[in-house]
Amino acid sequence: MISLNFKASLDFLGAPVYNAFLERSLKAFDTLVSGSGAGNDFLGWLNLPSDMLNSSILAEIEEVKERWYKMGVDTVVSIGIGGSYLGAAAAIKALSPSFHKEGTPEEPEVLFAGNNLSEDYLYELLEYIKEKNVGVVVISKSGTTTEPAVTFRILKSYMEQRYGLERAKELIVAITDARKGALKGLSEKMGYKTFVIPDNVGGRFSVLTPVGLLPIALAGFDIKRMLEGAADMQRACAIREADNGAIQYAAVRNALYSCGKKIEILANYNPKLQLFGEWWKQLYGESEGKEGKGIFPAAVSNTTDLHSMGQFIQQAERNLMEVVLNVREAEHTVTIESSKDDSDGLNYLAGRRVEEVNANAFEGTLMAHVDGLVPNTVIEIDHLDEYSLGELFYFFEFACGVSGYLLGVNPFDQPGVEFYKKNMFKLLGKPGYQK
Amino acid sequence: MISLNFKASLDFLGAPVYNAFLERSLKAFDTLVSGSGAGNDFLGWLNLPSDMLNSSILAEIEEVKERWYKMGVDTVVSIGIGGSYLGAAAAIKALSPSFHKEGTPEEPEVLFAGNNLSEDYLYELLEYIKEKNVGVVVISKSGTTTEPAVTFRILKSYMEQRYGLERAKELIVAITDARKGALKGLSEKMGYKTFVIPDNVGGRFSVLTPVGLLPIALAGFDIKRMLEGAADMQRACAIREADNGAIQYAAVRNALYSCGKKIEILANYNPKLQLFGEWWKQLYGESEGKEGKGIFPAAVSNTTDLHSMGQFIQQAERNLMEVVLNVREAEHTVTIESSKDDSDGLNYLAGRRVEEVNANAFEGTLMAHVDGLVPNTVIEIDHLDEYSLGELFYFFEFACGVSGYLLGVNPFDQPGVEFYKKNMFKLLGKPGYQK
Repeated sequence: MISLNFKASLDFLGAPVYNAFLERSLKAFDTLVSGSGAGNDFLGWLNLPSDMLNSSILAEIEEVKERWYKMGVDTVVSIGIGGSYLGAAAAIKALSPSFHKEGTPEEPEVLFAGNNLSEDYLYELLEYIKEKNVGVVVISKSGTTTEPAVTFRILKSYMEQRYGLERAKELIVAITDARKGALKGLSEKMGYKTFVIPDNVGGRFSVLTPVGLLPIALAGFDIKRMLEGAADMQRACAIREADNGAIQYAAVRNALYSCGKKIEILANYNPKLQLFGEWWKQLYGESEGKEGKGIFPAAVSNTTDLHSMGQFIQQAERNLMEVVLNVREAEHTVTIESSKDDSDGLNYLAGRRVEEVNANAFEGTLMAHVDGLVPNTVIEIDHLDEYSLGELFYFFEFACGVSGYLLGVNPFDQPGVEFYKKNMFKLLGKPGYQK
Repeated sequence: MISLNFKASLDFLGAPVYNAFLERSLKAFDTLVSGSGAGNDFLGWLNLPSDMLNSSILAEIEEVKERWYKMGVDTVVSIGIGGSYLGAAAAIKALSPSFHKEGTPEEPEVLFAGNNLSEDYLYELLEYIKEKNVGVVVISKSGTTTEPAVTFRILKSYMEQRYGLERAKELIVAITDARKGALKGLSEKMGYKTFVIPDNVGGRFSVLTPVGLLPIALAGFDIKRMLEGAADMQRACAIREADNGAIQYAAVRNALYSCGKKIEILANYNPKLQLFGEWWKQLYGESEGKEGKGIFPAAVSNTTDLHSMGQFIQQAERNLMEVVLNVREAEHTVTIESSKDDSDGLNYLAGRRVEEVNANAFEGTLMAHVDGLVPNTVIEIDHLDEYSLGELFYFFEFACGVSGYLLGVNPFDQPGVEFYKKNMFKLLGKPGYQK
């Protein structure tokens, strides 16, 4: 299991402060698990890991994988934005090699699109896939969200022209609403294989639905193992106790927020976790940033960013807290060798592994930041693998539900996302939105 | 030239507030250009664009390029951290295609290393370059900074074993101190071609020295054009007037900071600018984040992050301001076609370009954020090219110098970066740092 350490934050907070927030956190836990809070029609994610493991969905995903394998698909374009992009992207980045790997039918390359409106991005995508064997996954509850809809309209036309209507139909899979919406209607008409985005699971909580699972599986990773990690965490999070890590994390961060810590930084020490930070930012930012409230979520990849944001974190305004994500074991071995002249002065490291230096950078930074009055929560996993990612996804989701209720907001809506869209539709002259 | 628009911020601020800060900004400008402020031994970047254009460095860079071209180098590993990484990475990302392109001797792939301590990253780098023809650029003032030093020790040994001592010597270039330091000494001993990191240019201001220019040129981009853009901006920034954009930007952001805007978000509408955001974060975070002061720098890539951080920016705590970077023209054309059944409801966009939708997302978001009391500075360029990047690099550097002095800090030091290093050295038992 992942290990959690709140010591630095508990030392920072006076006991009465922490205890008061722990009480509130336990109450927020009750609100969450009893389904009595605002947004309670979006609690489907609570039981997703066990639900998914007991469903036919893993087998259905396997069927798509096999079909596309037989068809020689070596490149998958996954079209989606927000929660329909970040979870899968985070997991695939975490589990993939650091440098480019050519896609194969065994392990296709998964590309993400429909998550921006850059014309050059789309043009270059179409250029890139010219020589590839392409499958398309389109993910949208409604089918009318501008970014994925524009992208899918273009990709659909591309696939049909390139492969013909019949074959294109086999090479497109839609993940959408069970019953209604433009993409559901189109999928029925065209005969696409579809997966369901459950009504009671919001986008940022959807990584353990087919929204995340299908792209992750297509990339060659073990989604059953990921769900097992999540299911174990689901059981751990369900226990109403003061040492439930999710309850503690929610208490700590809100207590620190009440003491002026307005910004929370997710810090990793493994560059493969960079997009996990992006996933986490959406989860917490969108769940809590409303009604004039919310901790600003930011992310850094260390030790890279110790030479960028490090100065600020160490000595700027003391309105920061950290949640530090550490992976204990590397998967490969690189040892630092001795050098004859030791001109770089590194012989004191000879015979030691690079990851040992990284681990000491992690420890040394924690100490430095605590000295600099930046309190932290430390979360450690042994290996960066499917199981641990499942644990982390569920842990942060559950803690986010508790934390949002503790903060006094509905953690499951996102009313502010509509504002730019309305303006954009007006400017574009969309029917019904005229200026 | 880039265009700047401060209207939303000026509307937000009362005129007396802005005028007071404009006065201070003009004084800070005087401090900067007269060289009378703290850190004034690090002002070499002020005249870098014209200095570089008039030097032999472009020709020397061209020589390395030609030599490596003849040797068939298709993959360059650029080793550096912080300012010895971010500027080149930002420019190369901005100018490269969105998807992986195999390196060739004409346009080598530039990989970055030495910017973290991940053992798996290093292992996978060594695996990746096995089949490539490799050149190495190592960038370090001292040669003893842990991340690049560990990486270079391993890469040096790799190159010598693979290519032999003589050929490896030709395939390694060092960018380092003019006279002293471990890397300078080693380079002389080994006979590496070297470029100089000027003594009076700090890391985060070094993108227009060989630190940034060599990797950018090796990737196939026009560094002369970049310097020309920077030189034009150098001339524009040097004018002591109230409508000097750099002076205005420094005034606006400090005025807003004094009104409680604690976080500044650099927002782009082009995913190729994602690493430019990282470069900007180092520049401002490290220059200003000290003595308990400083605006927290964050970055978002839109429209991607409108479905992630968008909710927070629209409706959370009103402690945010934005600087929005917009590229007016796409380089390629993708037009949205009409569809017979219009199931996705996008026919109102038929015949229009994707970038037009993006431009309206940009406009619509600006309006929404202003309504949400998030003031902004808008910076626009026509094309994302070398010239514009040169302008942007110099503009932000100059404005940062002014802004730091206005804030009352030394914008050119980074004392806080040493804290984690000292702890790490103690933990690792480095000679001289025993516990």
